[in-house]
Amino acid sequence: VASASPEPICQPLAPWRTALAKAIHGNRKLPSARYPQLATVGLDGRPANRTVVFRGFFAHTNCLQFITDARSAKAEQMTHQPAAELCWYFAQTREQFRMAGDLCLVGAHHPNPHLQASRVQLWQQLSDAARLQFNWPSPGDIRQDNQPFPTDVPNRDEPLIPAE
Amino acid sequence: VASASPEPICQPLAPWRTALAKAIHGNRKLPSARYPQLATVGLDGRPANRTVVFRGFFAHTNCLQFITDARSAKAEQMTHQPAAELCWYFAQTREQFRMAGDLCLVGAHHPNPHLQASRVQLWQQLSDAARLQFNWPSPGDIRQDNQPFPTDVPNRDEPLIPAE
Repeated sequence: VASASPEPICQPLAPWRTALAKAIHGNRKLPSARYPQLATVGLDGRPANRTVVFRGFFAHTNCLQFITDARSAKAEQMTHQPAAELCWYFAQTREQFRMAGDLCLVGAHHPNPHLQASRVQLWQQLSDAARLQFNWPSPGDIRQDNQPFPTDVPNRDEPLIPAE
Repeated sequence: VASASPEPICQPLAPWRTALAKAIHGNRKLPSARYPQLATVGLDGRPANRTVVFRGFFAHTNCLQFITDARSAKAEQMTHQPAAELCWYFAQTREQFRMAGDLCLVGAHHPNPHLQASRVQLWQQLSDAARLQFNWPSPGDIRQDNQPFPTDVPNRDEPLIPAE
């Protein structure tokens, strides 16, 4: 699904890119056509599966980009088992793409400057409402009764770094 | 996602059933609202993910029913690792359900008569076009050039049993 070496990456267009581009275009009326499902494997060997938002390709590569909260379960899962399978069903054209690959988490300390630049760019392209969620309490924590969620939007320029 | 002992099963309605029923009803205009994504783990420890068709609940239980070709990869995967996670995204109401559980394959030789009865009933409810696919060449095999697929629909009364 995404992979990265510390070197700049430049890949020839994969054969499936044309078919996928056609499907995305043919289903462009449905916002959900950009929400495929990403399966990973947990530390207990059981699968996990969730909807993600496709954020375009990493420039000059066949690597798909997604945004995740570094505190989420999938961020931990992919550092132990990077293997993933994306299931992308297009409801309007009734096509399914199944894409197997390895995930690469591009966090604040990832050494590749090209990936870092893309990370910052994706953060900047998010809406305020989406960025705000990274200020919410940690995913999976028990919610404090009646405790309102923070409403202060993080800085648009630099991706938020979770507390250690 | 589905489990079964050899005994007749009767489960109280799970707390999530009401929310799921509401989501299915609220998205009933979209046929794809009945097509969630099912993640399993392969023999190599990598995840697999595909779209399945929800076929209702096994009577008096919280077990979801799906139909699979016994020759498919998921049928083999679930006998080695029954753990699965279903990701069910409802595009119209923008709700996501993630359901973790164990899969149980109800093949021709499954000893539970209640599950067998449901297996036969689901087969009978399939369209001819859907039943026909079980007569197609084995999933994953290399296709013979220009070889037409069989067009003879299997018997409606009894589910097709794959050749050993």
